[in-house]
Amino acid sequence: MKLEDLIIVSVDDHVVEPPDMFKRHMPKELLDKAPRSETNADGSNRWIYEDRVVAQMGLNAVVGRVEEEYGMEPNGYSQMRAGAWDLKSRVDDMNVNGILGSICFGSFVYFDGGFFLPSKDKALTYRVIQAYNDWHIDEWAGSAPGRFIPLAILPLWDVGLIVEEVKRVVAKGCHTVTFPDNPAVKGKGLPSIHDEVWEPFWRVCAENKVVISTHIGTGSAPPFASKDSPIAAWITSMPMAISNSAADWLYLSALRRYPDLTISLAEGGIGWIPYLLERADFTHGHHGKWTNSDLGGRTPSEVFRDHFLSCFIVDKFGIENRHAVGIDTICYECDYPHSDCVWPRAPEILFDSLTGVPDHEIDKITHLNAMRRFSYDPFTILGRENCTVGALRAQAKHVDTAPRSFGGGRPVEVNSTKRVTAEDVERMFAANEGKSAA
Amino acid sequence: MKLEDLIIVSVDDHVVEPPDMFKRHMPKELLDKAPRSETNADGSNRWIYEDRVVAQMGLNAVVGRVEEEYGMEPNGYSQMRAGAWDLKSRVDDMNVNGILGSICFGSFVYFDGGFFLPSKDKALTYRVIQAYNDWHIDEWAGSAPGRFIPLAILPLWDVGLIVEEVKRVVAKGCHTVTFPDNPAVKGKGLPSIHDEVWEPFWRVCAENKVVISTHIGTGSAPPFASKDSPIAAWITSMPMAISNSAADWLYLSALRRYPDLTISLAEGGIGWIPYLLERADFTHGHHGKWTNSDLGGRTPSEVFRDHFLSCFIVDKFGIENRHAVGIDTICYECDYPHSDCVWPRAPEILFDSLTGVPDHEIDKITHLNAMRRFSYDPFTILGRENCTVGALRAQAKHVDTAPRSFGGGRPVEVNSTKRVTAEDVERMFAANEGKSAA
Repeated sequence: MKLEDLIIVSVDDHVVEPPDMFKRHMPKELLDKAPRSETNADGSNRWIYEDRVVAQMGLNAVVGRVEEEYGMEPNGYSQMRAGAWDLKSRVDDMNVNGILGSICFGSFVYFDGGFFLPSKDKALTYRVIQAYNDWHIDEWAGSAPGRFIPLAILPLWDVGLIVEEVKRVVAKGCHTVTFPDNPAVKGKGLPSIHDEVWEPFWRVCAENKVVISTHIGTGSAPPFASKDSPIAAWITSMPMAISNSAADWLYLSALRRYPDLTISLAEGGIGWIPYLLERADFTHGHHGKWTNSDLGGRTPSEVFRDHFLSCFIVDKFGIENRHAVGIDTICYECDYPHSDCVWPRAPEILFDSLTGVPDHEIDKITHLNAMRRFSYDPFTILGRENCTVGALRAQAKHVDTAPRSFGGGRPVEVNSTKRVTAEDVERMFAANEGKSAA
Repeated sequence: MKLEDLIIVSVDDHVVEPPDMFKRHMPKELLDKAPRSETNADGSNRWIYEDRVVAQMGLNAVVGRVEEEYGMEPNGYSQMRAGAWDLKSRVDDMNVNGILGSICFGSFVYFDGGFFLPSKDKALTYRVIQAYNDWHIDEWAGSAPGRFIPLAILPLWDVGLIVEEVKRVVAKGCHTVTFPDNPAVKGKGLPSIHDEVWEPFWRVCAENKVVISTHIGTGSAPPFASKDSPIAAWITSMPMAISNSAADWLYLSALRRYPDLTISLAEGGIGWIPYLLERADFTHGHHGKWTNSDLGGRTPSEVFRDHFLSCFIVDKFGIENRHAVGIDTICYECDYPHSDCVWPRAPEILFDSLTGVPDHEIDKITHLNAMRRFSYDPFTILGRENCTVGALRAQAKHVDTAPRSFGGGRPVEVNSTKRVTAEDVERMFAANEGKSAA
């Protein structure tokens, strides 16, 4: 296969919600109660809902910057490449990066929509969530047919409403929802995935082939070792922190009842998965007589292969061991517009890691697994020949990809050679919050 | 290579401290102030020091039990196989399991000796720690020449005393010390590994070729997803929880100054390491211009290969990918007498995972890496021909390895088929504490 012939679908990207997103989707009489985007005196932006201010309106949306600025937190739309929040620019940036399709997690609502959990007026919030999904499905994804796998957020506090909303978005053609990788963590206080309260949610997802997309950081926050710990160490170990939740999901009893229930581990990487599965199988066998960890005759690794999706940005080791991961479980992710993304060179870096992989396996990894599990069929809409890296890039000759300086909050002084620590980054975020509240 | 010709050194086992351990090592006038082992009315045991009672005197020492009892917490010496705490029985159990050499982490003192951190009388406690190390080095390891790699605990609250104690135990031939995988966690409150206060500790270890052994669970406790989470999930993801600390240690600046400084990641497994190293190298390259994560010209994976040791119990995937881990970094561990250990079949299970591995690489993994890095030379003492699985097992014909019932705290009722959860296991530990306090 040639690089130009790759067809690449990304199951983990992000959208920074544009300021007018609710305008066309909330009833006029409720629009002033929807979350509103404000511009601060210094030109930075913030979202406000009820009495809460969201300072991180563009979390880590640093794509297109010079590398020195990858760690600088954007404070406003003007500090981001337009592709972060503008649909037409996003499609341009997908084209120039050879990305056919994309799942976009939200930003100010958190990756799992958890921002709305502590809201006061739950009836209003349910309406806001519906408007959010209408914007995401009809306006964002709907304006570029065949280019997005729409992703819905859920009213996490009420499983009855969750089921209603899943049915509503399925009717619009949406086949994945975002859900915390661990709903039982302190900050969320929801029942654990093993609580029977969730049963109607599992059922509605299975019956409608709706994939549950769980993104790293939506359960237990990936820990950093100490405030002195270099930020590089935290970035390094962050993705595989989802392994704890992955092990927990393996034992979800609903996976025995619903063959079509699928869990996607977003931004977790793949190279560590064979270790986890061997360890899970060992534990299941060696400890099974006292743990009563019944999986209905399957081993944990079999459960994984039947029900899970994984994805990677750069993961040569995982690709080399793709059969130990599970060739039918692996998807690609771009992580646009976050700092780990390798835009606009994703095809080159991906292609390099695919050396020696047979074409039919490349196709599974780059798009067929995602298309099958997410009920996504771009070929019918666009024609397969228009979906390749080569074809998409041919439409993007006008896109300027030169790295630029955008500004934003800084973890350390300009030109400092001080090693950036977890504490520096926390301080940067706190300064952003201070700015917004001013 | 034949199974009988394997020479196996384990760099992670545990000793349950025997009740009279301080008798021959504390000055007579201080003996009544040393930690003392008491027998409760029901025959169970507990340790007491100052005003603190340690309920978990034999944490997870379940080797030799019927499999149904692996999860039952032993409450006393009578509920454990004697090899957990009795030297002669331990050597028998090593022989029958084909284990030549062993590093034994402590039990009531915690794996990192952290039990002594909050003690009131620090002068007394320093003396207790010296007595503990004298017992461990002179009596436990000393009574079976060539069979143990002695491991010292440290007065963690004072780096000056640490340096003194390291020098003292080095003079006795001890070349490894236990240290928290993350000293900065809340429960310990020590400076992070990046604090310059530790400089004399790094130096004395490097200058004396003393390996810093960090055991999982001594920094951040490996998390469980929720109280409802099956204990099988927790056991599964527990070892790789050390990946967070491993990433942090990669950036220890002392590793640039001291070529001989070595960190051992005990009980962490190995199969996930190639993923972490690729991720670390990517992070170092992709984010380096803003993180200032200077490693003096080496990549993180090079730092790992130069300074780290890893180990595994059962890890076929890791062995298959031994060169991606680093062939000179891998050691074996038995984890006797804990529930993950596969006594007395360690050689069979290890041998099975070594299929296709050349002999000289098998030797590195099974003993040469450990011998070199831990300055351990059993061949001179015992003769190489007496160190093989075959030779050791020939001395153990009298050892009865039949699984037995020992009793102890139960996580769930006898014959219950209820899936054992993290909460069940926590409740079992709490019940043990209640018993001891009575």
